[in-house]
Amino acid sequence: MAAGVSGGKFRERIQHMVESLHDETTRFFTAVDGGGEFREDRWEREGGGGGVSRVLAEGATLEKAGVNRSVVQGVLPAAMAQRLGARIGGEADARFFVAGMSVVIHPRSPMIPTVHLNVRYFEITDAAGEPLDAWFGGGTDLTPTYPYPEDARHFHRTLQAICARHHPSFYPRFKTWCDHYFVNAHRGDERRGVGGVFFDHLRPGEAGLDLEALLAFWLDLGRSLPATYGPIADRRRGELWGDRERRLQLFRRGRYVEFNLVHDRGTLFGLQTNARIESVLMSLPPLAAWEYAPEWAPGSVEALLMAMLEPRDWVAEGSTSAAVHHEGTKDTEG
Amino acid sequence: MAAGVSGGKFRERIQHMVESLHDETTRFFTAVDGGGEFREDRWEREGGGGGVSRVLAEGATLEKAGVNRSVVQGVLPAAMAQRLGARIGGEADARFFVAGMSVVIHPRSPMIPTVHLNVRYFEITDAAGEPLDAWFGGGTDLTPTYPYPEDARHFHRTLQAICARHHPSFYPRFKTWCDHYFVNAHRGDERRGVGGVFFDHLRPGEAGLDLEALLAFWLDLGRSLPATYGPIADRRRGELWGDRERRLQLFRRGRYVEFNLVHDRGTLFGLQTNARIESVLMSLPPLAAWEYAPEWAPGSVEALLMAMLEPRDWVAEGSTSAAVHHEGTKDTEG
Repeated sequence: MAAGVSGGKFRERIQHMVESLHDETTRFFTAVDGGGEFREDRWEREGGGGGVSRVLAEGATLEKAGVNRSVVQGVLPAAMAQRLGARIGGEADARFFVAGMSVVIHPRSPMIPTVHLNVRYFEITDAAGEPLDAWFGGGTDLTPTYPYPEDARHFHRTLQAICARHHPSFYPRFKTWCDHYFVNAHRGDERRGVGGVFFDHLRPGEAGLDLEALLAFWLDLGRSLPATYGPIADRRRGELWGDRERRLQLFRRGRYVEFNLVHDRGTLFGLQTNARIESVLMSLPPLAAWEYAPEWAPGSVEALLMAMLEPRDWVAEGSTSAAVHHEGTKDTEG
Repeated sequence: MAAGVSGGKFRERIQHMVESLHDETTRFFTAVDGGGEFREDRWEREGGGGGVSRVLAEGATLEKAGVNRSVVQGVLPAAMAQRLGARIGGEADARFFVAGMSVVIHPRSPMIPTVHLNVRYFEITDAAGEPLDAWFGGGTDLTPTYPYPEDARHFHRTLQAICARHHPSFYPRFKTWCDHYFVNAHRGDERRGVGGVFFDHLRPGEAGLDLEALLAFWLDLGRSLPATYGPIADRRRGELWGDRERRLQLFRRGRYVEFNLVHDRGTLFGLQTNARIESVLMSLPPLAAWEYAPEWAPGSVEALLMAMLEPRDWVAEGSTSAAVHHEGTKDTEG
């Protein structure tokens, strides 16, 4: 199962990678913002481990940016092991170790989409530290307010290219997984955004890849935001917007809150493991609205956005739908 | 157990009571608003029943007022029966019937508190309609932004008087139940507001009271808002406020969202039973904010509010705490 996992030494490598990734990501979003600075909080978790939360609030471009890293360890109750999907045999003394980075960016402009990225490495050991199970998880997804199909295409095509460097099955599989993960089931399966990729339980041996090959993929994904999101933020930062776009943004942020609090496993895991609550809920938007039963006129920007949330093959050329043509903006990434 | 419950006839009485209560409550909040009108939506639930949702949005006084009634029935899966706390023996063909009214009021002014009230009557029968269990549930709680201790005292003392007309044990017991129910456990047991009363599973025989006596209490509670909340809304509607009070209000509304989506059983029941989602989530505020790890200066209005959320005996004379004295406003209800 955990063949190739060399215990403490591998954990140390992962921890250093997460630290570097966290610093790189902080620098990237400091540059994207172009004005604000991240505030840093270091915290320790009762029961083992801790993290470093960095938040940029009320920036020049970003209304709220949260970039969090954590390394948490502790006793793993059987019920939690089951929820996590750990392949262990009900060991009473199992322990978990999880290291990862989590990023949620809420730009001020409704023309720039919200983006999320998370990478995490899980290890389960027995009380003596012998490995029982280990896996990688991760994902990144885009949540636009304004319906620019070319932004969704750029995001997905860039992810497809990154995934393809590691295994041809990864993008199609993890794209579909993402479409099925970020879903507000209580809202008639409405999606949180236009998706991206999502995976969990990626264990050595998966798709014929060993630990090092999976690690390389995982790290590539962790470093993907400058390529997937950077060009979108750059080309949208100059777009004009007003009350109508802001209203739609706050409305969609309400749905973001609903997903994170009702469905997101990462958030619920945080709530259950006594992680620092301000860091767990850093993902929530600075401001969100709930309107009662709004109705969007057919063909309106709002209706086009809602249609764009339906899962679609953003990579294929044939994905130029009615919404794209209506939009009439040129596809700047091709 | 369900002695005295006469099946269809009692259900009809309850339905009529809920309809009258719904109309009275709508009239009351139309008057409180003093300008806006409620929009009405009638809806049916796949699987049985339906409801009438009334929402007043962007009113003169109320930013969002939701007054919902519903009568829902259907097959009761065993897992749901267990979650509901029904005292049944695992009957495969059990059915449920629930009739109730739910009210959530979010005033525009941060000086006027948010208020919630819910009354519900549950009945469980077998497939032939034979009663297996039946109970009343309900509650009402106050969520202030601005720390006026005299408002919390008025709310609690009025509830205490209403409860005392029916049974001396009701207020102390249901006040404590409320303090333990509206809790954001993931926020270090922070309370949603200053509480009120909450109860569930009030069955005939409880406290020596029969079905009619419990019904009278339940109806009295359903009609309590003009007495508990009316005077507070009236005396606060003229208070001046600005950005600072609005910021605190939006921040507290974020916590309201967290409670409703993460912990509230009524909301989760709605999400699980395919009730009309816009009606279930009508309770969410029109606008809410999340600030990262805010710190309130000792002695500030914000710190006084947070201190006021700690459960306290609001009925006893001795409840005049430091916060009250600091406030310096006179107690207008005494």
